[in-house]
Formats: sequence, C-alpha cells, structure tokens
Amino acid sequence: MCRWLAYSGDPILAEDLLFRPVHSLIDQSLHSRLGVTTTNGDGFGMGWYGEGPAPAVFKAIEPAWNDQNLRELAGHVRTGLLFAHIRASTGTPVQRSNCHPFRFDNWLFMHNGAITDFHKVKRDLILAIDPSLYLEIEGSTDSETLFFLALTFGLVDDPPKALERAVGVVEDVGHRHGIEHPIQMTVAISDGSSVWAFRYSSAGQSRSLFYSTDVVALRRVHPDVPILRTLSDEARLVVSEPLGDLPGAWNEVPESSWGVVRAGQDDLQPFRPTTTT
Amino acid sequence: MCRWLAYSGDPILAEDLLFRPVHSLIDQSLHSRLGVTTTNGDGFGMGWYGEGPAPAVFKAIEPAWNDQNLRELAGHVRTGLLFAHIRASTGTPVQRSNCHPFRFDNWLFMHNGAITDFHKVKRDLILAIDPSLYLEIEGSTDSETLFFLALTFGLVDDPPKALERAVGVVEDVGHRHGIEHPIQMTVAISDGSSVWAFRYSSAGQSRSLFYSTDVVALRRVHPDVPILRTLSDEARLVVSEPLGDLPGAWNEVPESSWGVVRAGQDDLQPFRPTTTT
Amino acid sequence: MCRWLAYSGDPILAEDLLFRPVHSLIDQSLHSRLGVTTTNGDGFGMGWYGEGPAPAVFKAIEPAWNDQNLRELAGHVRTGLLFAHIRASTGTPVQRSNCHPFRFDNWLFMHNGAITDFHKVKRDLILAIDPSLYLEIEGSTDSETLFFLALTFGLVDDPPKALERAVGVVEDVGHRHGIEHPIQMTVAISDGSSVWAFRYSSAGQSRSLFYSTDVVALRRVHPDVPILRTLSDEARLVVSEPLGDLPGAWNEVPESSWGVVRAGQDDLQPFRPTTTT
Amino acid sequence: MCRWLAYSGDPILAEDLLFRPVHSLIDQSLHSRLGVTTTNGDGFGMGWYGEGPAPAVFKAIEPAWNDQNLRELAGHVRTGLLFAHIRASTGTPVQRSNCHPFRFDNWLFMHNGAITDFHKVKRDLILAIDPSLYLEIEGSTDSETLFFLALTFGLVDDPPKALERAVGVVEDVGHRHGIEHPIQMTVAISDGSSVWAFRYSSAGQSRSLFYSTDVVALRRVHPDVPILRTLSDEARLVVSEPLGDLPGAWNEVPESSWGVVRAGQDDLQPFRPTTTT
Repeated sequence: MCRWLAYSGDPILAEDLLFRPVHSLIDQSLHSRLGVTTTNGDGFGMGWYGEGPAPAVFKAIEPAWNDQNLRELAGHVRTGLLFAHIRASTGTPVQRSNCHPFRFDNWLFMHNGAITDFHKVKRDLILAIDPSLYLEIEGSTDSETLFFLALTFGLVDDPPKALERAVGVVEDVGHRHGIEHPIQMTVAISDGSSVWAFRYSSAGQSRSLFYSTDVVALRRVHPDVPILRTLSDEARLVVSEPLGDLPGAWNEVPESSWGVVRAGQDDLQPFRPTTTT
Repeated sequence: MCRWLAYSGDPILAEDLLFRPVHSLIDQSLHSRLGVTTTNGDGFGMGWYGEGPAPAVFKAIEPAWNDQNLRELAGHVRTGLLFAHIRASTGTPVQRSNCHPFRFDNWLFMHNGAITDFHKVKRDLILAIDPSLYLEIEGSTDSETLFFLALTFGLVDDPPKALERAVGVVEDVGHRHGIEHPIQMTVAISDGSSVWAFRYSSAGQSRSLFYSTDVVALRRVHPDVPILRTLSDEARLVVSEPLGDLPGAWNEVPESSWGVVRAGQDDLQPFRPTTTT
Repeated sequence: MCRWLAYSGDPILAEDLLFRPVHSLIDQSLHSRLGVTTTNGDGFGMGWYGEGPAPAVFKAIEPAWNDQNLRELAGHVRTGLLFAHIRASTGTPVQRSNCHPFRFDNWLFMHNGAITDFHKVKRDLILAIDPSLYLEIEGSTDSETLFFLALTFGLVDDPPKALERAVGVVEDVGHRHGIEHPIQMTVAISDGSSVWAFRYSSAGQSRSLFYSTDVVALRRVHPDVPILRTLSDEARLVVSEPLGDLPGAWNEVPESSWGVVRAGQDDLQPFRPTTTT
Repeated sequence: MCRWLAYSGDPILAEDLLFRPVHSLIDQSLHSRLGVTTTNGDGFGMGWYGEGPAPAVFKAIEPAWNDQNLRELAGHVRTGLLFAHIRASTGTPVQRSNCHPFRFDNWLFMHNGAITDFHKVKRDLILAIDPSLYLEIEGSTDSETLFFLALTFGLVDDPPKALERAVGVVEDVGHRHGIEHPIQMTVAISDGSSVWAFRYSSAGQSRSLFYSTDVVALRRVHPDVPILRTLSDEARLVVSEPLGDLPGAWNEVPESSWGVVRAGQDDLQPFRPTTTT
C-alpha cells in the first residue's frame, strides 16, 4: 500500500512537513508503523498549488528517502496546499505515470489502498469512464482509474457525491465478478481551495487515516512545541499515520466517512457508496 | 519515429550488430540519416531468444548511446535471434512499458511509425482488443495497441493475416474519425524461429526498410570484408536503415509488402489490409 | 559540449525562459545550432535562488526535451536569478552528480567546454584543490574540478581573479603533460546577487557566448515584441546561443573576456589566466 | 549496509539463485534479517563471467525488488560464476558508479560494511592509490576506494595479501585521524576462476558471512530438496545471510578470516591486516 499527507494552511516550506517531523512521511517511506508494508519505496510524488490555478506535480520512481531532487524542492517550495505520497506498488509497474498525486485541470487526487483483483475488473471500470476523459488516463493503476470514475460522475461539482458513485460502480462491478470486498481506500482530493479526505473499505476495515487537531487548541496544551508556533490557526493536516507522538494532536477519521478542510468550518460526514443495482 | 534492427542467423554477440557497424543502430540513435527525426533518444529496447521459449527483454528510458548496461549486455549476450529498437516518442510518455520490443508469450513485436491521431481512435481500438488480452497491455502506445489488435486477430496462427486484419481495423476506425491516412508502419514480429517484416502505410509512402542480401553471394563479391566471414550463410538482417555503405549489401523492402526470414527460403508478399466495411 | 543560460532580473517564471523562446534551451537540447554537438541529451540541471541564501538545484540524467518534472517545475518556479544547463558528456558518466550547475554554499557554477585530455591531468588538478574542500566534490567531471580549483583560489572573494588562477593552474599542468591547448570554456558563476560570465580557451577560439542587449533600448526598437514588455529594465540574459533571431537583441561576449551582471552597471574585462611558471 | 551473494559452480540460471530461494537476495532487499538495515533499496548490481575473460556488470539505482530488467536478465543469464549485490547507502550518492560489484579487467569486487568516517580519511586513502590506477575510479564510495587500494597493493597477484595490506593502510590512516575502529567489511573478489571471501572488522565484530556446505554431503542428508539436485558437486555459495533455513546447509565464516572457493580444495585462513607502523 502507500502513505500520504495533505496540508492546508498558511504557506509553509515543504521540508517542514516532509522531512522535519520525527515520523515524517520520508521516515515512513522506510519505516511505516501502521501501513500494510513497512517499506514504501516504489516511487513518490508531491503536488502543490502556487502559480496559476493548476498545481505542479513532481513525481519520480526512486524511493523518496534518497531522492536528492525531492530534498532540493522541499527546501524551496513554499505553499499553502500540499499533497505528498509515497508508493508501495500493488502490482502495477513502477513508472512516473503510476505515481500519485494524479492531476486533472486544477484537481489533485491521491489514494492509499487497492481495488481488489483489479485485473478482473479493470476493463469494465475503464469502459465506465466517460470516453472524452478516457484519453487523459496516463498510467495503469487502479488508483487513477478510481480518479477518472469520480471525474466521470461529477467530481468537479461535488467530490463526495462523485466518489460515492465511483465507489458504488467499483463495488457493483466487483460483486458481479464474485469479489467479496471490492475496494479499500483512503483518498485525498483538492481543487486548490478545499481538501476532501475519505476513509472507506467494502469490508469496513479501512486503512488508517488521521487529521490534526485544531492548532489553536493544541498550542494552548503544548505552548513549548516549536512547530505549533509556525503553523497558522487554520492549518490542518490529514495523514495516513501520525507524524509524531504529541498527545492530543491527532484524531482518527472514523470508519466509512469523509471530511472537508477549508477556510471556516470543518465537517465530517458518513461515506455511503451509491449502488445502482 | 524510431529505428529498429532484427537479426536471424547463427548465434552472434549483440555488440557485433549494435555497436560495431559503421552506421550501427547506436550511431543511428544520435545521427539517423533516413528517419523522420535525427535523434532517437527516448528509450530503447533489446529482445533476444536463448533460455526457454520466451525471449528476454531489456528496455530502458535513457538514450541508447550512453547506456552503460546496454553496452555490458551487448558484450555478453550471444543469440541467434535479436530484436533491437531505439525510440523517438510521438507523444506518449517515456517509460519502460512504452519501449519496444513488446512481448507476449514467445512473441516479440516492434514498430516504427504511428497510428495517426491516436488520441482520436485509441478508445475504439482498445475496445476491439480481445477482453482476455486487454489486461496484458502494459503501456500506452499506439504500437502496443497495434500488437494487441494483431494478437486478437490470430497473430500466433498466421502473423501476416493477423496484421492485415489489425491494420484493416485501424484504417476502418481511422476513416470513421475522418482521418485520411490512418497508419504508417514498419513492423518486425518473431516467434523465436521466424522473423516477419512488414512495410506499409495508408498513404503508400512508408518509412524505409531494408533487408540484407544473401550472405553467400555477398561474400563472393566482397571476399575481404571481415564481418561477412563471421556471419553464417543463413544470417539475415532487417533494418530501418542500412548499417553501412557496402555496395550490394542491402535491398529495400518494396512498398506495401511483407517478408519472412526463416531457415530455407525467404519470401516477399504484398501486404493488403483486410477491410471489413 | 553543452549549452547554458543565466538569467538575472525581476522574478520570472522559469518556463518563460526555458520553453517559450523560439530557440529555447530545451529546443537547443535537440537542435543546437552553434554547439559542437547538435544533441545535448546527457542530463540537465536548473539552479535558482529563492528561499534562504542557498540556491535550489534540480538535476536529472534524462534528456531535457522529454522530462516531465522539468516542465512541471518550470511552470511553478518564479525566480530573479536562474541558471539552466543541458549536457553533452565529453566522456564522464551520465549521473546526477556530473550534471551542472554545481553548488557550494550560496554559489552556483556551470560550464561549457572541456579540460583537454582530462584523464592525463585529473590527479594533479585534484591534488591542487584545498584538502578541506576535497570532500565536497561529488562527481567526476572536469567542470566540477575547475569549480573547486576556483574555490581553492578564492572564488568567494573575487570570482574573476580566482578563475584566472584556476585556469592558470589548468594550463600549467596541461603544458607539463604536453597538452598544447589545455582548456576550452564558457563559464557562469553566481553568489545569488551577481552573475559573472567568462569566455576563454587556450587556443583563442572559444565556444560561443552572448549576452542580451539592454532591455530598455531593445524595447524602444521593438515596441511590439511581447516578451520585452514582461522583462524588467534590469533583466539580463547570458546564453551559449541566442534564444531567437530578434535583430539587435544579442551581443557576442568577446574572446578571452569576462563580464558581470548586477544591479547598476555592467562590465566587460579581459580574462588573463594567472600562470605562476 | 548491504547484502551480497557469490556463486561458483556449474553454469546455473541467475534467477535460481536470486529469485527462487525462500530468503533470496531479492527478498533480503526488502526484509534483511541479519543486516544493519532491513531495507537494501539503494541500487543493486550483478556481475557474471561468460564471453571472454572480462565479466559483464549490470547495475541500476532502483531497488532490486521491483526492477523489471533484473528479472529479465536473471531468467536468461546462465553462468558458472555470479556476483550479486544489493546496496544500502552509507552516505554516498545513489548512482550507477557507486553500485557493486566493481570491475577492473577480469576482476570483480564487492563489499558489505564501511570505512568509518570516510569523509575524514578519503583524501589520504585516494593519495595512497597508484596514480596509474587513479583514473579508473568511477564513483565516490569507500568500497571502490578499498578495491583500488587492494589493486595498488598487488590484488592481481595475491588477493588475500593485497587486501591485508589495503586494510592495513585503512587502519593506519584511520588511527592517525583518531578513528578507533576504521573498517568493517565482508568482501568477495574473483578473477573469473576463484572466489575469495573475507570477513573482518577492526572491532572484531564483523558483519555476518556464510558459505554453503559441501553439496554432496548436503544432498545425502536432504535427498528430497530439489535445488540440491540441480547444483553440481563443486557448487559453492558465499552469502551475507543464508538463503533459507535448511539445517546443515550453512557454515559461518569465522571472525577475521578469509577463504577461497575454487576447483579442488577449499581453504580458510586468518585475515591479518599488514600495518606498516
């Protein structure tokens, strides 16, 4: 599987998120504690918003822990909205076009988990994608397929509803092929303003997902922790696993639910795939 | 576009074919004379038969002219049937899964040319591929799509007939999308025993393709040329462009035709796409 | 050999320099007009100043013309001081540590040309480098060796004098080994504020080097050229070959001379290697 | 640190050694049991003898567990003398020229361990290398430095004596720099006929090293184990950690000793660095 991190808040240097924390994402690439695999060395990616509406995406097939260019960029990219992802392939080739995050116009998408027995259902799922979107598919992963299904079902208008329909199709198709639990996922999506995070699995036993506690409250409890002073009040992280052991800092996203991080109020809702059969 | 070379004959070191000739394939990667592009630096591949019925395939996304591993292998791989290909991308990503030759079981396939406006016709062509073969597609090129269409139409039983049907489908689909000249190709196919070579384009102006003259005859005319003494009587090369300027050494494959190289008799036949509409 | 570009001026998107111009550096990687080689496909690098005093350096071993990450970064890196370089190896391996620009603290250095018969003189030159600097050498090129010689001879205090001494050593050592013309170079150096550019060769026939004409004057002559309106009055480019054919836009740096680009006055001086023998 | 494997015996397919065993070298790249690091993902290399006296060397900077080309080669390279190595960098860059095995003429060399505080002693050690050999150094590792020291001290005439002198120099130089335990190593060396294996560390606590028991004896004890039937009587493996749990199959190389594997008699001797001070 994989590990990922999404940050939203005042502009911050990427390295403060990716390299500085005790159990940073880069540390997780070698020593994941909560992942299905301890090593996530099959490529990585980083997407961020800055110039113009469309985000930049930097991806490579080397392990993140030793990539010099990632270190360089992390020290010079300052952004208020960052996605980062380390990959452990579940079978598809280690190539740039299979690395997360995936991009479409101003949208970013990243995924931890898998579509079960993807080889059995891939063709049916690809056929369910809008033909006008089909050509934008660059790689061969289940994750990108899920992204394009969500785009087909209206991601740009209503991300949660679109992903509920996409997962509904994945489950329908999976069940038709005799697959008991067709999907396992945590997902992050952004349009450059909001971040949507999802935790769901057909079996009801989803991969771990955490979001950071309100920074203001946290700062009150830990007045001596340096990073809390650099984070803005609105700053929020969503992560596959906590970046450190600070008590009170992390909340688990509940099973089968989604949330949105944006200026103003946060929000947690149940995630219910839309099955049409 | 690309450049390629196919060799069949007594076992020979790959470097004698890839690096030694004056205008070798590696030289062509930087200085192609007859190609649409002079530089073919978007990856390369080499396939050869040896252990077992299935060939080995070594591919990389670096330019061939500077790849150390290619040099190493070329000096140690001795084979009686070799395919080599240098790529100039016509738009699809530079990744290993897009490098030639492509393999299916004991079959190798490589291509120079393009399916015109591939983005317009890709989905229709993919849908024409046998669903049971669909999952074996690893990359995103027009070339691999052509290979899988040919597999769908019986490549393993009759390569020329299967490719005629595949090209027929490409032309039908292309014409339906208003594309005047849907395909441009030289193609090499092997099952480990024979090599089939094809030269065709919808416009009747195909990329160059040459085959070597009978070695016995050539040796008689040039008793002093060293490489001719190392080649066996049955040795035969098919190449995108001649590897040198030896008079009498190269014959052009005629427009719209195919040939087969195998023990015994060579053969040249017209290539006629099978249109069903 | 190689091609390079140095920009100093108001912050500008890297892609406006690297991809937009008619004969951009990326175009030169495939079709150099004035270079010794037409193809510069053995890696590339980009260095820029932004966060903190030290520049970021992004380098890769793929050809620049097809690198997705370079395209991504170019569209999101905005900087007032940019170095970019495309490499054509003169023998040393294609690896990241051999790509330009090289960095030391807040300094960047890039080079087109070669130290003649580098294998004969390398050890002597390496021995001439300050032992405390020796360990900072990461690659195996003649270019990086020249940089560290210049650092040894006081680059951080007086770049032109230091490079004159470094080149003096290269020529002394070369002559001792019977090499008639020990060096060929155009070089760019920056500390984050100024850019120094050098054109010199032992034979007095140096690789091409150009600097852009004063933008204010140029804008007067060409009121209709869009890029001139986006460049600030102080903007200045130094390049291996012109990025386009705009009349009056480019001045050749004279043989055996150096100049400095900084706020205020530009300056052109003779370059005279300091020989101690 | 790293893991390695050396095989000598009747020609065998590389994949039978690299991929087939339960705890194969490829498995160790993700899940080393006895290594200092569990992940060895910073490149790999494979060297083998076949055509001509000089071995082929295939190396890459990707993790071995996911490299398609390694899998392809392993299935087609049949050799009687194979070196394979997976790397966990101790600080030097992940680049091809830093991957093991290293080659000089017909010699191969690979290393697990480190020269302590290499940055402190590197220049002195490089200066101790024969100037005529200096230029053959391609990378920047402590391991390659050790190889070239051994070459300087007569490796091609007497590998054990040369390595004892090389390690003596490393310890002398280290002690002069105040380093208590200057070296940690297991090393394999071959000239294409014999394999020498070394286990030594200044602290007397060396990395693990094992050699396989006599195949004839082993086959008697385990008549039902398939791989034993495919190995020739003279076949011998030397490995960083056992490839499986077969009782009686593996002997630990004693602390501070070396052995040689060749046709006829094996041999185990004490390893005593030659200090000249």
